[in-house]
Amino acid sequence: MTPATAPPAPGARNTRTAATRAAITAAAERLFAERGVSAVSNRQVGEAAGQANNTAVAYHFGTKTDLIRAIIRNHAQDIEARRAPMLESVRGSADIRDWIRCLVLPSTEHFAALGTPSWYARFNAQVMTDPALRALIYEDALASASLQETLQGLRATAGAIPPRIRRTRADMARQLLVHMCSERERDLALTAAGTADPGQQHWAGAPVDGDAGTWAELSADLVDALTGLWTAPVTR
Amino acid sequence: MTPATAPPAPGARNTRTAATRAAITAAAERLFAERGVSAVSNRQVGEAAGQANNTAVAYHFGTKTDLIRAIIRNHAQDIEARRAPMLESVRGSADIRDWIRCLVLPSTEHFAALGTPSWYARFNAQVMTDPALRALIYEDALASASLQETLQGLRATAGAIPPRIRRTRADMARQLLVHMCSERERDLALTAAGTADPGQQHWAGAPVDGDAGTWAELSADLVDALTGLWTAPVTR
Repeated sequence: MTPATAPPAPGARNTRTAATRAAITAAAERLFAERGVSAVSNRQVGEAAGQANNTAVAYHFGTKTDLIRAIIRNHAQDIEARRAPMLESVRGSADIRDWIRCLVLPSTEHFAALGTPSWYARFNAQVMTDPALRALIYEDALASASLQETLQGLRATAGAIPPRIRRTRADMARQLLVHMCSERERDLALTAAGTADPGQQHWAGAPVDGDAGTWAELSADLVDALTGLWTAPVTR
Repeated sequence: MTPATAPPAPGARNTRTAATRAAITAAAERLFAERGVSAVSNRQVGEAAGQANNTAVAYHFGTKTDLIRAIIRNHAQDIEARRAPMLESVRGSADIRDWIRCLVLPSTEHFAALGTPSWYARFNAQVMTDPALRALIYEDALASASLQETLQGLRATAGAIPPRIRRTRADMARQLLVHMCSERERDLALTAAGTADPGQQHWAGAPVDGDAGTWAELSADLVDALTGLWTAPVTR
């Protein structure tokens, strides 16, 4: 064991730095998810991460935007790793469902793998709703070769759709994916914590049975719905 | 003219109260839309509404939740007034598109009627993304007889869909409507202000042509897409 007064060995310092960075991103993800990005300061993130020094976030990440980019990158790796083998198996497919599965499942399976409670789906929804920050998610989408290949597959199999409507449908798919996952994550967390409100009536009038539904069920429902959305006849 | 030192006539006081309330709701709608609800204090709303007294919001509305409820009610009247005659003309229809039009058009036509720039679509998206506040939108949905009749029409014409999946599809429709309208409102405002970024690439890879698209186009695209979404075969 290194005595407390000696400078830490380089390996120990790297380990500690990595642990501090992980504590900061975890705290930021949760706070941004629960309160919204603009409502949380870097100082609050540092405090929640157990950092006595109130410039810890700036020291380890830079600006709040840099911190958000780092959180997105943390998760993007696993999502990419899930999409790559799926793409291998559908390459050349003329079935649009195959491509929609490549769009949806890498995210829903990533969220499922995070366990309950998780915060990244809600973090994503907050970032998407912030006009300035949404660009970070779009940067990430443009930088992902596997996502762009998936979208090309969708374009190739969706039939003749005018480019502007195709773009609008891609936006719809993204909004649905982000916001439905955010809701599912929240419902699962409330149910797990025993704080779901079983007496609550669904806004569309049907009673709520207190079962949040699984990630696998949401995956299946999104794939069905997006297949319908993407192949719907264009009437204008 | 009433001398400055005399107490105002009751009529004048009512007019002034109405004008103050309108100034406060307009300021709140814009600030909440642009920055998010939790990032804006009642004091900031009062200042933006030109109120010297920093308890003006509390005096005229009560809590922030009461203020948000008042903003929703302001707009709900016009949306209801648009849906009622549409419902008259589709009652008994077996065509699901008729019911989806009753879901979508009252909102998109209301947003179009607000002119550009407007803020209510973005306000809605912010409120929907806030776990505690979303309940206010759902309250409003449950209280709207015309919306509930529309949803019943949808249920009756959508074919046999298990109740839980029907509920999920209703949630999808709501997320799409709220977030796509929010995006369209923002794009129209940026284009009108000359601050849209024409060089920006769409995240799905297609180039952006700098044309934000109209509310009527979004209406048509949403009706097509939601018809596809709602009638998509259920595979699980």
